[in-house]
Amino acid sequence: MQNPQRETAEEGAILFYFDFASPYAYLASTQMDGLAERTGRRVVWRPMMLGAAMKLTGAQPLVLMPMRGDYARHDLKRFAAFLGVPFEMPPRMPIRSLAPARAFYWLRDRDGGKAVELAKALFVAHFGRGEDIEPAAKVAEIARSLGIDDAALLAGIEDPAIKETLKRETDGAIGRGVFGAPFFLVDGEPFWGADRLPHLERWLLEG
Amino acid sequence: MQNPQRETAEEGAILFYFDFASPYAYLASTQMDGLAERTGRRVVWRPMMLGAAMKLTGAQPLVLMPMRGDYARHDLKRFAAFLGVPFEMPPRMPIRSLAPARAFYWLRDRDGGKAVELAKALFVAHFGRGEDIEPAAKVAEIARSLGIDDAALLAGIEDPAIKETLKRETDGAIGRGVFGAPFFLVDGEPFWGADRLPHLERWLLEG
Repeated sequence: MQNPQRETAEEGAILFYFDFASPYAYLASTQMDGLAERTGRRVVWRPMMLGAAMKLTGAQPLVLMPMRGDYARHDLKRFAAFLGVPFEMPPRMPIRSLAPARAFYWLRDRDGGKAVELAKALFVAHFGRGEDIEPAAKVAEIARSLGIDDAALLAGIEDPAIKETLKRETDGAIGRGVFGAPFFLVDGEPFWGADRLPHLERWLLEG
Repeated sequence: MQNPQRETAEEGAILFYFDFASPYAYLASTQMDGLAERTGRRVVWRPMMLGAAMKLTGAQPLVLMPMRGDYARHDLKRFAAFLGVPFEMPPRMPIRSLAPARAFYWLRDRDGGKAVELAKALFVAHFGRGEDIEPAAKVAEIARSLGIDDAALLAGIEDPAIKETLKRETDGAIGRGVFGAPFFLVDGEPFWGADRLPHLERWLLEG
């Protein structure tokens, strides 16, 4: 079922699709505020379960692929240095990002701005400091540090309605052709990869 | 067997590994002269058979992948427009690029500058005008338009020594960790993708 209010909220916005397990999505996440400021567009954050999309395309997690994985580890560090953001490879990758993604959607329905703040904090914990954010307890700990009611959040993660929201968002993303992360849609135009952010910005500013 | 002269020629150069079948390598090829000028480094062109490398990593040609292929077609056109270079999708992709790659190495041993000129012309024919450059006759026709002895080139393509050169160059590339195209090595630092050229340049200029 469509939500007309949500559709309207999307109009003109930069839809930022990501999986909390994606290191390149972390890099992109650090650029969203600047992008919004320079382009005058809002950014709508949309965590999803990328594994579902990757099954459809036959893709594997980059860091697990022979040769490519080693390169990606090197590229990520270098890319982060160019962006001037911290980067630390987490102990295991990719995590199963159900808890962080559900926590985001639980909070979004209550306080959209706070949900983005939580998403940024989760990304920085995972890839800026190399912490494992798969356990719900870890997500709750980070939420608590932002003044979020962590007991309510833990209950929210287990709420069938929230589980359904994440499933619906993931299906919706796939339905729009999202097959990787980070992935951006703006005015229907698709951009895949942190490395396409300069293209996105140029496309918006130069038409 | 190492060739000491060739090893010396590589020192300090930007090694540009590519497959003539790769559309993103075409985009990169249009940027090599500007890159060399701005960084003061020579560019050494190194065609290879990417299929051999992709078998090792389990990767598939991007344009053949579900969802990703459609996106790539769109991204390529947009990327080319940003670079200000022509782009036309060839009738079939990916081609088997044996003839263009062997023609390059045959000519390189005779006139390195002319070989680069031929490589540029082959890329522009394939992805700038959408022509099929798999047939040796087509490669010869393009060579002839550049004043190259096309009969000698056609014989060169069939020369076992040239076939061996391409095989050796491909194995050498894989041995250095090249798994995709375009791929760059400079002072041992690896960069994968046309989208990493700004990183390569920054890495060289800012250290």
